[in-house]
Amino acid sequence: MEDGATMPNYSCAIALVLALLTPLGSTTASAGDLGARIAQQGTAKGVASCMTCHGADGGGMAATGYPRIAGLDADYMAKQLGDFRAGKRNNPVMVPMAMNLTEEEIAAVSAYYEVMPIPVPAAQPPDDSVSKAAVDLALWGDWTGRGLPSCGHCHAPDGNGIGSHFPGIADQPASYIKAQLQAWQTGARMNDPLGLMKAVADRLTDAEVEAIAGYYATQPGAPAAPAENLTKAGGNNGGAANGVQIGEIPHHGDPPSGRTAEGEGYFTSPAREDLPEGPFGEIVREGRDIFENTNAHRVSSEYVGNKQACGNCHLDAGRLADSAPLWAAWVAYPAYRAKNKKVNTYIERIQGCFQYSMNAPDSKAGRPPSADSDTILSLVAYSYWLATGAPTGDNTMPGRGYPRLKETKQGFEPARGASVYAAKCALCHGTDGAGVTLADARTLFPPLWGRDSYNWGAGMHNVDVAAAFIKHNMPLGLANTLNDQDAWDVASFMNSHERPQDPRFQGDLAATTELFHANKFDYYGKRKSEQGYLLGERPAAR
Amino acid sequence: MEDGATMPNYSCAIALVLALLTPLGSTTASAGDLGARIAQQGTAKGVASCMTCHGADGGGMAATGYPRIAGLDADYMAKQLGDFRAGKRNNPVMVPMAMNLTEEEIAAVSAYYEVMPIPVPAAQPPDDSVSKAAVDLALWGDWTGRGLPSCGHCHAPDGNGIGSHFPGIADQPASYIKAQLQAWQTGARMNDPLGLMKAVADRLTDAEVEAIAGYYATQPGAPAAPAENLTKAGGNNGGAANGVQIGEIPHHGDPPSGRTAEGEGYFTSPAREDLPEGPFGEIVREGRDIFENTNAHRVSSEYVGNKQACGNCHLDAGRLADSAPLWAAWVAYPAYRAKNKKVNTYIERIQGCFQYSMNAPDSKAGRPPSADSDTILSLVAYSYWLATGAPTGDNTMPGRGYPRLKETKQGFEPARGASVYAAKCALCHGTDGAGVTLADARTLFPPLWGRDSYNWGAGMHNVDVAAAFIKHNMPLGLANTLNDQDAWDVASFMNSHERPQDPRFQGDLAATTELFHANKFDYYGKRKSEQGYLLGERPAAR
Repeated sequence: MEDGATMPNYSCAIALVLALLTPLGSTTASAGDLGARIAQQGTAKGVASCMTCHGADGGGMAATGYPRIAGLDADYMAKQLGDFRAGKRNNPVMVPMAMNLTEEEIAAVSAYYEVMPIPVPAAQPPDDSVSKAAVDLALWGDWTGRGLPSCGHCHAPDGNGIGSHFPGIADQPASYIKAQLQAWQTGARMNDPLGLMKAVADRLTDAEVEAIAGYYATQPGAPAAPAENLTKAGGNNGGAANGVQIGEIPHHGDPPSGRTAEGEGYFTSPAREDLPEGPFGEIVREGRDIFENTNAHRVSSEYVGNKQACGNCHLDAGRLADSAPLWAAWVAYPAYRAKNKKVNTYIERIQGCFQYSMNAPDSKAGRPPSADSDTILSLVAYSYWLATGAPTGDNTMPGRGYPRLKETKQGFEPARGASVYAAKCALCHGTDGAGVTLADARTLFPPLWGRDSYNWGAGMHNVDVAAAFIKHNMPLGLANTLNDQDAWDVASFMNSHERPQDPRFQGDLAATTELFHANKFDYYGKRKSEQGYLLGERPAAR
Repeated sequence: MEDGATMPNYSCAIALVLALLTPLGSTTASAGDLGARIAQQGTAKGVASCMTCHGADGGGMAATGYPRIAGLDADYMAKQLGDFRAGKRNNPVMVPMAMNLTEEEIAAVSAYYEVMPIPVPAAQPPDDSVSKAAVDLALWGDWTGRGLPSCGHCHAPDGNGIGSHFPGIADQPASYIKAQLQAWQTGARMNDPLGLMKAVADRLTDAEVEAIAGYYATQPGAPAAPAENLTKAGGNNGGAANGVQIGEIPHHGDPPSGRTAEGEGYFTSPAREDLPEGPFGEIVREGRDIFENTNAHRVSSEYVGNKQACGNCHLDAGRLADSAPLWAAWVAYPAYRAKNKKVNTYIERIQGCFQYSMNAPDSKAGRPPSADSDTILSLVAYSYWLATGAPTGDNTMPGRGYPRLKETKQGFEPARGASVYAAKCALCHGTDGAGVTLADARTLFPPLWGRDSYNWGAGMHNVDVAAAFIKHNMPLGLANTLNDQDAWDVASFMNSHERPQDPRFQGDLAATTELFHANKFDYYGKRKSEQGYLLGERPAAR
C-alpha cells in the first residue's frame, strides 16, 4: 500500500468494488448477478452502465452533480427509478434509462447498490463560510417563523437517512443536493411523500441551499438506519398503510408557508449561540441534551420506561410556540394543577412528565428523577435559560401549551382517523405506531401507542390535547395543514390504542376510570381496543 | 351582679382596683404602699393622684387623651416621669407633677402601675374606614419608598410592647396615640432612643396617624413581653451598654427620610391585597408565614436549629430592595455559586439558607427541608409570586442582594465596632447579642451571635456582607444613617463573636479555614474570641 500512496482514490475504489462483486446480504445470487451486470455493463436495451456516470465505486461525480448511489436504500432507489420511468421525476439522462428497465432490473440494480460499500471520500477542508448556517439548519432547523424542521429530523441526525422514504444525504455531491433542493423549489422534482420536500425547500434561501449542500457533502456516508415498521417506498407502488396510499400532495396552489404569519408576536428564546460558556452553560447544554435524547441520555435514561423524549411533544427542543414551549411553562410555575389537586413547582411538573409521558414506573429506577437530581437541575436550567427575559408569573404568553381546537359538529371517530393516519402519519410513525428508534437508542419518530409510548396518565392520551398538538405541529414541517376534523379523528385513532398502564391504577379499572378518566376526550376504561378489551384492561407492558 | 348590669364600667373597675391594693409581684411592701398612695392620693408636695386623670383603673381617659398606665412597663414609665422632670418630655400637666416626685416615688408609682391589671375595655365597633391602611402600617409597614418598618416590628406584633424601650401602644386611647405621633412629628416630644419615633412619625400622613391611632385603640392590651437582655430605659439614666449611652439623637437638621429617593426605579412586587384566593394564594401565604416566622412555624421549625427567620436578613418579608429581596433572587436562579462550586437551583439556594443561616444541623431534623417538601414549595411559591413580572434570567436587577460597601482607609476593627454596637444596636439585639424571641417562639429581634444565631457557614458571617446589610438596612427605620466606617466596624464586632460551627467542618479547624474561610473578611479560625479561643474552635452549640 505504500506504493499506492500516490494512486488516486478512484483507483482504490475500483479495486474495492471489484473485490466485492460477489453479492452480499439479502439479495439472491441471480438478482445480484443481474444487478452487477446492469451496473457495470448496462442492458441490451440500450441502458448505459450505471458506473458511467455514478462512478465505478458508485460514489457519484461531484463535478457533474451525479449522486452517490452506493449504499442507498434499495427501496428508495427503486422508487426513484420507478418515478423516472413513470414521469414522476424528471431528469434528461435518467428518464430514458429508467424507461428501458424492467421492474426486475430496477429491483436488482437497486439491491446491488444498497450493499455496495460507501467509498471513503478524500478529506475535504471544512468550509467555514457556510458551516454555521448549514449546521443550524441541518441539526436544528428554523422552526420559529419558518416552521422548518432540521434536515436531520427526517434524514437522521447524521444525514444518512432512515428507511426508504428518507434517503441518505450525507456524502452526496454538493452539486447534487443543491440541484435537488432547487428542483423541489421549482417543481421540477415532485415525487416526495406528503409534499414534504417541496414545503421545506420553498422556505430556504439560495444561500441556505448552498450551505446545506456544502455541509452534507462533507459528512461521512453510511447506510440508512433500518426502520422495518415504516412503509416501503420501493417499486412504483408508493407506500400503503391500512390500504390507504401515502399522499404525494400535488404541487398546485401555495405550499404550506410555515409559521411566519402566526409566528409574529411570540416570545423568542435566546439564540443557541448566545449560551454562555462555563458551568452554567454546561448545565444548560446538558439539559438540552436530556430534553432531546431523554431515553438515550446517560444521565436521564434510567428514569424512562419507554422510547419517548421530551422533545417529541415539545418541538424545536422546547422552543416552538404552540408546541408547549418551555419558556411559557417556566414562568407559569408554581401553579395549581387540577390533575393532582395541588400547587406544583416546575420541578414537580417535570417529574409528572417522567411519570406519565416517559412512563417512569416501567423504567430501571421505577420512578421519576428526584427533585434534587442532576437530571432535574439540568432540565430546570435549560427551561430557565430558554425563558430569559420572559415575565415571571405570566401564564398567558401567546403560544403557550397547545392552542385548544374547537370541537367539530361531527365529533371525532377512530375509524375515520385510521385513514388520516395511514395517509399522513404512518410514513414516520409506522403502521404499528411504534415510531423509529436509532441504534444508539435515540428516538427519531416517537412511538404513538404500545409499550414504548406514553402511558395512560400522560396528558397526550386525551383526544383533545392530542388533536391540538397534531393540528399545530404535525406532520413535521407541515404544521396547520390538516383540517380540524382530520386532526380530531387521527388523534382519536391514536388514542384508541392500548398503551402502558396509568401509574395511578390501583387494581380497579372502573375506579381508576371514574377517578382520573371521567372526561369525554378520554378512552381509558370506556372503549374497547382492537383486541376486544376495554382500554386500560390489558395495558401494554415492557 | 344582675343589679350591677346598669352600673358604668368605671365603678366595676374601681372595685377591681380596690381589691388589688395589696401590692403584688416584685415590688416591696413599702414601695407598693408608697406607689398606691401616690396613685390614689397624690403626695404632700402637691402632686395630684394619678387616678384623677388616668382613671381609678389606670385605664386612661379617651376623651381627654390621657393614656392608660395600668400594665405599662415600670422602667418605661419611670423613664417618662424622669424625662418630664428633666425637661426631656413636655406636657403642661405632667411636668409639674414629675418635678415634685422623688426618684423613689417615681420608682414606686411605676412599679405600682406595672402590675395593675389592664382594664378590659368595652367592646368597640371596628372602624372599617381606617382599618386597612392602619393594619398595613401596623403589621407590615411601608418599606419601599418610605423605609417604614411596621409598628409591630418594635412594639411587638400585638402592639403590647417589648422590654422597657418599646411601650405597649395597644389599648391606648386613640387621642393619646395620635397626640404622641404628632408630638414626635413637631418635635414637641423627643425622648426616643436613636430618634426612631421622630424618624418614623415624620414619614406618616395625617390620615395614617389617625388610622394607626384608631387601630391600636381597639387592640386588646396586655403586659409588654419581657426582654431581660435588652438595656433598661428606667429612671433618668437612659440605657447603658458596654459603658456607652444609647443615643438619643438630637432632632436638628433633616431627619432620615427613608428610602424615597433611592427607592425610585426598583422593581415592585404585587401588592399584598392582590394575592389571589384559592390554593395558589394559600401556598403563597403559607410561604410568607414561613418566611417571617421560620423558627416558630408549624411546618418549617423542624429544620431550624437557631432562632432566626428568613425575614431577619430579608426585610419587609423579602420585598425590600438592597435587602436581598426575593424577587431579584428568584429570577437569577439556577446559577453557578462559587460557594459550592456548582450550578444551584433556587431550591438548593434556599436549602443553603436553612443549612447555614438557620443552622439546620442543630435542628430537630438535622438537615434542611427536602427539595420536594411543603416548606420548600411554599417558599418557592412565595418568591415566585413576589417576582411577578420580573424578567427571567436578569441577575442585575437594581436592589439585588446587599449593595457592596467600599472598603475604608481605616479598615474595620471590632473594638471600635463595640461602641457603635452599644449605641445603635444593643437597644434591640441586647448587650449579649441574643436578640428577642417572643413567647410563641417568633423572633422579634434576631440573635447576632451565640448558639441561636446563624452559623459559620452563613454568608452573613463575612464582615463585608454584614457591613453591606447593616449600612443599607440598620438600625430598623434608620437605614443608611450609619457612616460607612461605623457599618464596617460594627459588622466586624458582630462577627468577631463565636457562633454555631460551620456544617462543613470535618474536625480540623485549620483545614476548614483554608477550604472555606480564606477571605480577608472572615474571622473563622483566624481571630480569637473574648474567651481566648480561635473563632470556630469552641463554637456555640445548643
